[in-house]
Amino acid sequence: MQRIINNPDLVVEDMLKGFLKNHKDIVAETENPRVIKYVNAPAAGKVGIVTGGGSGHKPAFIGYIGKNMVDAVAVGEIFSSPTAKAFFEAFKEADGGKGIACLYGNYAGDNMNVKMAKQMAEMEGLEVKTVVANDDVASAPKEESQKRRGVAGEILMWKVGGAKAAKGGSLDEVIAAAQKAIDNTKSVGIGITPCTIPSVGKPNFQIKEGTMEVGIGHHGEPGIKVADLATADEMAQIMLDIILPDQPFESGDEVVVLLSGLGATPIMEGYIVYNKVEQILSEKGIKVHRSYVGNYFTSLEMMGVTLTLMKLDDELKELIDMEVDTMGMKQFQK
Amino acid sequence: MQRIINNPDLVVEDMLKGFLKNHKDIVAETENPRVIKYVNAPAAGKVGIVTGGGSGHKPAFIGYIGKNMVDAVAVGEIFSSPTAKAFFEAFKEADGGKGIACLYGNYAGDNMNVKMAKQMAEMEGLEVKTVVANDDVASAPKEESQKRRGVAGEILMWKVGGAKAAKGGSLDEVIAAAQKAIDNTKSVGIGITPCTIPSVGKPNFQIKEGTMEVGIGHHGEPGIKVADLATADEMAQIMLDIILPDQPFESGDEVVVLLSGLGATPIMEGYIVYNKVEQILSEKGIKVHRSYVGNYFTSLEMMGVTLTLMKLDDELKELIDMEVDTMGMKQFQK
Repeated sequence: MQRIINNPDLVVEDMLKGFLKNHKDIVAETENPRVIKYVNAPAAGKVGIVTGGGSGHKPAFIGYIGKNMVDAVAVGEIFSSPTAKAFFEAFKEADGGKGIACLYGNYAGDNMNVKMAKQMAEMEGLEVKTVVANDDVASAPKEESQKRRGVAGEILMWKVGGAKAAKGGSLDEVIAAAQKAIDNTKSVGIGITPCTIPSVGKPNFQIKEGTMEVGIGHHGEPGIKVADLATADEMAQIMLDIILPDQPFESGDEVVVLLSGLGATPIMEGYIVYNKVEQILSEKGIKVHRSYVGNYFTSLEMMGVTLTLMKLDDELKELIDMEVDTMGMKQFQK
Repeated sequence: MQRIINNPDLVVEDMLKGFLKNHKDIVAETENPRVIKYVNAPAAGKVGIVTGGGSGHKPAFIGYIGKNMVDAVAVGEIFSSPTAKAFFEAFKEADGGKGIACLYGNYAGDNMNVKMAKQMAEMEGLEVKTVVANDDVASAPKEESQKRRGVAGEILMWKVGGAKAAKGGSLDEVIAAAQKAIDNTKSVGIGITPCTIPSVGKPNFQIKEGTMEVGIGHHGEPGIKVADLATADEMAQIMLDIILPDQPFESGDEVVVLLSGLGATPIMEGYIVYNKVEQILSEKGIKVHRSYVGNYFTSLEMMGVTLTLMKLDDELKELIDMEVDTMGMKQFQK
């Protein structure tokens, strides 16, 4: 295993130390070493935005802490859920007296731990409402969309929820905006190489040379099919053929496109895919209002890409365009 | 080769198309398809900042085009120099009537082509002055520092030169600031896996499993030594042992630290190394004024890290802290 680590069982601890030192203008530690907060959190009179999830997906999740986005994050081990206690304490760190919007992804461990944390918070009189991201269309059919996993679309949910809270929205308004964001968001991924959890030391799944896994999950969950490795243009078409009919996205729609590398894919390859994505959307009369290409939600050193589209209305457009200053996303108000 | 491309001979073309579409608020195409410029370039009365180099190092070079940084970039094929014509036309795109500062890295092809481009510009009455980055201490001994290659320290040179130009500096002032920046900057890299140029289809060098190449260049140029794969903390120490005595950096100094992944190394591993780098510097009484950790100057899907330190004075501090808005570096004025 060619990796740059110390003790494989302490990669999260070591990473957090460096992250806190490097981004001390944005993030701060808390009493719980598995809870990281925005330096300016809590903000009195503002709904607190909390998320959490397993490590290894950087910038997700802690990389989206910051101005107009996430206030506190519960940090899990590599690819595993944070504890209920970490979620609960993240709620408290983000509590500005107007309630907490916990915006997280649909995984069994996270669901269970957020539910317990919410009960703990309610016993202390802290109101917590949740939105569960389920943007990964490859993980279940549309009729069972509540079973779908949350993937890179979570970023757009945090962006929208965080902006709504920053604008002074009530807890119900923030939850409604974040729910609308994720309801309007669909994602799919293609993996072309596996990844290795440091403490395991070898890949826990395989992708055969010359093939690709269409619909792969962020932890190597099997996708829709294994196919011969396609060109970048073909991948763009394959991914759009999966997500466009699912929303559906249609002529006249305005969208945000988020094209994320899975970690080890050179950034230039993301642009090659994006070129075709934008061309196909344009031919279909779908207008790209804003696009993001880069490593926004990764899986250690997996190679591959995920494509996320969010359908916009006026409210979502305004919230997506709001200034943001986090490690993973910096955007100037223009 | 598990990669996300179309025609391996057209990766630069395809990438540029997607890059221009995704970053149309920052960059624009020019008549020469191998010259990309800032949307607001040229700015009348401002020194134009130009650079250029081979592709495959994203965000370098085109990712540093933008507000308060680079005005125009000459784009080369993967790992090879842009043409003299591309440099010349980049000069013209950046020309606001106050001269051009061409700030580039010390490679034979770039030196030759910049020299020719400069002659072409002079024949048209356009004044061009250059700074040649040579921050890679592993590539030649200190007595022959003019032979050293330019690596990630180039980013700090562009940051400083771009800021000085934005503040209204004359061509001589911009050149002096950029020269001081690179004179105060030292870098070294460690590679742990090779990379594959798409049109070649296989790695053009090897790094044996369980080993690492200390002092590796951005194109796989051999380093100082091949050693057993070390821990992240050991790598931090090894890299600092090489660059600290070279400047030298000493107690009381204030520095910028730039720790870049080489492409496929998970971002979290960069933070693990940075944690130790900061600790060692702190123990030595060297203060980190600002730090950057991420994929700032990569080599396709190579795994590894580079460490860059710049010694600051008041002028460099002010220029480094200036707001910047590019694909590769976004920084709010605080």
